Amino acid sequence: MRLTAIAGGTGAAKLLRGLAAARPRDTLTVIGNTGDDAEIWGLHVSPDLDTVMYALAGRLDTARGWGLTGETFRCLEAMGDLGAQTWFNLGDRDLATHLHRTRALREGLPLSAVMAELCGRLGVAARVLPMSDEPVRTRVRTPDGWLSFQEYFVREKAQVQVLDVEYAGASQARPAPGVLEAICEAEVVVVCPSNPVTSVGPVLAVPGIADALTGARARVVAVSPIVGGAAVSGPAGALMRARGLSVSAVGVAAAYAPWLGTLVIDRSDTGRVAELARLGVEAVLADIVMTDRDREIALARVVLGSRSPVK
Amino acid sequence: MRLTAIAGGTGAAKLLRGLAAARPRDTLTVIGNTGDDAEIWGLHVSPDLDTVMYALAGRLDTARGWGLTGETFRCLEAMGDLGAQTWFNLGDRDLATHLHRTRALREGLPLSAVMAELCGRLGVAARVLPMSDEPVRTRVRTPDGWLSFQEYFVREKAQVQVLDVEYAGASQARPAPGVLEAICEAEVVVVCPSNPVTSVGPVLAVPGIADALTGARARVVAVSPIVGGAAVSGPAGALMRARGLSVSAVGVAAAYAPWLGTLVIDRSDTGRVAELARLGVEAVLADIVMTDRDREIALARVVLGSRSPVK
Repeated sequence: MRLTAIAGGTGAAKLLRGLAAARPRDTLTVIGNTGDDAEIWGLHVSPDLDTVMYALAGRLDTARGWGLTGETFRCLEAMGDLGAQTWFNLGDRDLATHLHRTRALREGLPLSAVMAELCGRLGVAARVLPMSDEPVRTRVRTPDGWLSFQEYFVREKAQVQVLDVEYAGASQARPAPGVLEAICEAEVVVVCPSNPVTSVGPVLAVPGIADALTGARARVVAVSPIVGGAAVSGPAGALMRARGLSVSAVGVAAAYAPWLGTLVIDRSDTGRVAELARLGVEAVLADIVMTDRDREIALARVVLGSRSPVK
Repeated sequence: MRLTAIAGGTGAAKLLRGLAAARPRDTLTVIGNTGDDAEIWGLHVSPDLDTVMYALAGRLDTARGWGLTGETFRCLEAMGDLGAQTWFNLGDRDLATHLHRTRALREGLPLSAVMAELCGRLGVAARVLPMSDEPVRTRVRTPDGWLSFQEYFVREKAQVQVLDVEYAGASQARPAPGVLEAICEAEVVVVCPSNPVTSVGPVLAVPGIADALTGARARVVAVSPIVGGAAVSGPAGALMRARGLSVSAVGVAAAYAPWLGTLVIDRSDTGRVAELARLGVEAVLADIVMTDRDREIALARVVLGSRSPVK
């Protein structure tokens, strides 16, 4: 089966690990968010792509939800001694990924080619595609001005008020090679339980991707990142509110309504089913909080089983 | 007292540590070799400048003679996993120096300004000046073609035949700010026991520096890196031979003859004194192999005591 997933970081990583374990022989293509890419110490860092890559390589630190397992932070300490900013945690082994990527990008390779090489080196069977090879940068407006996503999320720990969100560069960006084909040719398209505004939003802001989802022959299945009235993790609530979306499974469905077929929601959200139906979205109830590997695989099976026959 | 030292890497680091300990209140300016600078993983690495800086900061791994004490190599291992070249050993904490320098250089800062900032951060009281802010690259011709110095020295472990040595870029390079002043205004100029061809040679190849040494009011005192017919460490012998210099204290004096006043040589080389005198170089006999801190300080005292009255 050809699976294509649209993915942010931590939440996506869990479901993707579940999908890869549930259907190891299927072709899995991940379209990853690059809106939170950042330049740290002169290095090009792609946090969401790397979280997905490390998860699929079996190397993600699952307790933290980012970075490599068994990581050390000696270089970070030394950067602090030199007076550099150290709010963004780059581990010693993780640094190799960023050094490798930065050099390759400077040599003129597109990000998609760099990710293909990195995934190959780390033994990742899935294809991990950036949504675009061109820069798209999510920016968050706060009462004190615009911040990059990492400044907002990591440096400010998402503790500042969000007034607006923009995807700088999105209108000029093109989908990376293979992105539209992966959506059009998939038998199932999965939207991972990621932040609709700052993880999936940047992907949808790249011209052509939302249209491809609308025209996809496969049914599109999303997993809600919201249970009840709050995000399973991270600042999705505040960001959805800033974009005028209700913080609920219904708000998630509204963000994806034009092309969403099915939304997998938490069993506790059974009261939302009728409202989702009015948006044209079929609801599937499941245990969507993935607290261990078994639940990741169980949820992946629900997602794969919930697809309707090909349109 | 104003001391100015011309320095390569490991041997220089020992004498400089001795000079700094013997005369902690004196003004010490080091003019360092950048001919062996290299780009590793996209980072600008200045091995000789860093060896000197780390030594004067009390952080040099003295057993290895390069890098930081207590260093780890996690990033290097991960770079290997990604298929990168790993023959040049960059430690995790050391990486911070190279990341910091590379970003600053890309932002347009000259290397001399970057070194001043790094030395300040590491608590180095001495000034460590690169010989030039412009690139000069030592290249070694072997039967299989030209190699960069690091390819020759680290990758090939200096085990290939040397046919010739060149300092690419030297004729277009200018001394870094402060270099000529440091030579002209010094009360003692010390040429550290470094390789005359690939450590001191590139410094002398920068137009203006040899002339400044010739015109310096201070007597110039060098410490021989050669005892008997062999280098104390490293490939100086093969490189001197390739440049037509005899591998002896006399060969060292010949390389520096136009401006050298005094050469400190090993007690075992007493037979060379007359020959040195014929080159116009005064010989001072001492224990020049610095096997511990006490010997570093003792040799520094000999160097400082050997100066003749100001010309």
